[in-house]
Amino acid sequence: MRQTELFSKTRKEVPKDEVSKNAKLLIKAGFIHKEMAGVYSFLPLGLRVLNKVMNVIREEMNASGGQEILLSALQNKEIWESTGRWSDKAVDSWFKTTLGSGGEAGLGFTHEEPITQMMRDHIRSFRDLPVYAYQIQTKFRNETRAKSGLIRTREFLMKDLYSFSRTAQEHDEFYKIMQTAYTNVFSRVGLGPFTHMTYASGGSFSKYSHEFQTVCDAGEDTIHLCEKCSIAVNDEIFSDQPVCPACGNKNLSVKKSVEVGNIFSLGTRFSEALGLKFVDEKNESKLVIMGSYGIGPARLIGTIVESFSDEKSILWPSAVAPFSVHLLLLDPSDDMARKQAETVYNALSAGNIEVLFDDRDVRAGEKFADADLIGVSLRVIASSRTTKDGTVEVLDRRSGKHTMVSPDTLASHINAHL
Amino acid sequence: MRQTELFSKTRKEVPKDEVSKNAKLLIKAGFIHKEMAGVYSFLPLGLRVLNKVMNVIREEMNASGGQEILLSALQNKEIWESTGRWSDKAVDSWFKTTLGSGGEAGLGFTHEEPITQMMRDHIRSFRDLPVYAYQIQTKFRNETRAKSGLIRTREFLMKDLYSFSRTAQEHDEFYKIMQTAYTNVFSRVGLGPFTHMTYASGGSFSKYSHEFQTVCDAGEDTIHLCEKCSIAVNDEIFSDQPVCPACGNKNLSVKKSVEVGNIFSLGTRFSEALGLKFVDEKNESKLVIMGSYGIGPARLIGTIVESFSDEKSILWPSAVAPFSVHLLLLDPSDDMARKQAETVYNALSAGNIEVLFDDRDVRAGEKFADADLIGVSLRVIASSRTTKDGTVEVLDRRSGKHTMVSPDTLASHINAHL
Repeated sequence: MRQTELFSKTRKEVPKDEVSKNAKLLIKAGFIHKEMAGVYSFLPLGLRVLNKVMNVIREEMNASGGQEILLSALQNKEIWESTGRWSDKAVDSWFKTTLGSGGEAGLGFTHEEPITQMMRDHIRSFRDLPVYAYQIQTKFRNETRAKSGLIRTREFLMKDLYSFSRTAQEHDEFYKIMQTAYTNVFSRVGLGPFTHMTYASGGSFSKYSHEFQTVCDAGEDTIHLCEKCSIAVNDEIFSDQPVCPACGNKNLSVKKSVEVGNIFSLGTRFSEALGLKFVDEKNESKLVIMGSYGIGPARLIGTIVESFSDEKSILWPSAVAPFSVHLLLLDPSDDMARKQAETVYNALSAGNIEVLFDDRDVRAGEKFADADLIGVSLRVIASSRTTKDGTVEVLDRRSGKHTMVSPDTLASHINAHL
Repeated sequence: MRQTELFSKTRKEVPKDEVSKNAKLLIKAGFIHKEMAGVYSFLPLGLRVLNKVMNVIREEMNASGGQEILLSALQNKEIWESTGRWSDKAVDSWFKTTLGSGGEAGLGFTHEEPITQMMRDHIRSFRDLPVYAYQIQTKFRNETRAKSGLIRTREFLMKDLYSFSRTAQEHDEFYKIMQTAYTNVFSRVGLGPFTHMTYASGGSFSKYSHEFQTVCDAGEDTIHLCEKCSIAVNDEIFSDQPVCPACGNKNLSVKKSVEVGNIFSLGTRFSEALGLKFVDEKNESKLVIMGSYGIGPARLIGTIVESFSDEKSILWPSAVAPFSVHLLLLDPSDDMARKQAETVYNALSAGNIEVLFDDRDVRAGEKFADADLIGVSLRVIASSRTTKDGTVEVLDRRSGKHTMVSPDTLASHINAHL
């Protein structure tokens, strides 16, 4: 894409009430727009990153047997009353609204209730199970403290998968598959080295649930990390001495962290309240065993920016970068340099490499500052200088290494360094 | 996909309060689930159709120069007060809610206000224009009469594009590009022959706006159609004798129709209220000229089902069908027939043809009835009978024609008949 055609601009100013590093950088870089506290819109560059994150998640869910659906945001009060979660005392983050035809509706902050109700139409027999259904859908939570940018918002896309199993064993097997799928997601988006499976409180049906916590100064959670096992325990579940549940190690490190995902065994809590049963092989009626598994794609983006940025620049991991290459034309009034840049742009685009081409008529310093801010790790520079020996300059921002590359071999050089 | 792995089932019953043909059929076929009046969720088959419709729209918007973004559903009251549209008297379909931190927020029923406000950060000079930005995003409208299934819902995805132009002429040129893009969308999803550009009321800045109306008994609108020009006039704009605005013909046919899209010249209504200006070539400050352009993907699906179905079956146009081929194994206990079906399934899947494979252990009559309901137009049948001469039977439901085809040439036969 040509930068002259991209409507969003980098900015020097951010809204006065914005305090988080990730939102400040993403607003300055033209990725997001702040609508109000805890509510952000996605501009073209931000939506590109969001789509890449969502596709990584979607691929891992599909590979785990998930079937994608799309549930409504508007929630039927009666269904939530069945489980005791309609009351504002039980759930303090509801957004509720009034129907023109009378009565109230809620805006979903999660979807256990409606999906359990819906599955009553599709699950009758053991032959219909197991079922794994997920969506990537907009949730609403009436947060009173929304000061962490994309990490805690009042409206956000969430991938939520729900599992429906016949037995505790079948549930446990899928729960392990999800642990692997989640590990894959965080690894693919670049957060693997800082993200730890974390024991958290489990509710009525299991001792623990599991969170995935990314160590990060902007985090709102506190974990106790066992460096030997690379697993952690959420501070909230300790009454006394923290200890690693895997190896018994008592020498744990206390870290601030962001909860980037969670997986939860629900047992029969929802199937019982809403009457989701199946007839088993012995013709006996049984309650379906459920689990739920959440990841917030935009929260991941916020965490990635907190982890891979300084005050003036972002450095996106390749898999989620808005473009693979940022091509800068430094001397737009030099016909040779422009011709070289156009040739490179066309050749890389023809090779299905996603290129953001800074073809603007602005000075080099502004181009470098904007490119640092926008955060693509591979930079290709065409200038009066590079045309002299017929090469272009490639900068890999991760290593800081500059390489002069012939346009003929550029595409393969890029593909080798993505 | 194997039908034994698809969690959704066809159903005989529909909710008692469901009166619309499109929702009844889509619920029976397992495409959608009714959450409450005017609120539906999408099951795997329904989401496949929705994604296909959205991709057709997305391709046409991108080809017209549109840049995709994603705005928030939650709306800032102050911005809407600037244009006089916050009041429930001005807009009777608001869903509003209360913020935990105090104050009210709305749920967007359209996005002129927030996108105009947002563009103030990105449009300064004539060099920044024109801009065409669109989203496919969930809208909320507090409908009191929601009895038309997917055609009128309280929560729905909408593609809304907004144009920002320097001059009336630049606006008019893009408005014509959108007329063509819209015509392409309706043609590609199969509604072309029944869909007519329709003159409707224009607001303060233009005499007319344009709707795209699909002639359909389930429609809530009435149009006067000029059969000669294939254009129409909405009943709402006539005070006396209807006449074709293109050719003067007074012999117009009165039809029921569904508004499947609309395009609207907004002039400076929103840019003036919210202060969206640019500096032109003469260094003069000018208001940006705007337009808005909407299509509801799910309303399109409802209209397609109304247009291509009878009481027991749907017949999807190829471009939006959930699968390209429905493969039915009629004698699952016959090893030869099962082997033939498996071979065909693997070969077509390897050829990137989307196949729904009815590998269930149920009787042939149920498979045919379900396949009629699910609505894929190309059906491939493998049975004890077809294995005898080594062919499979292909039924094109549109023509009713049966053809015996060798598995070797099946993929090319399918590709020629999509």
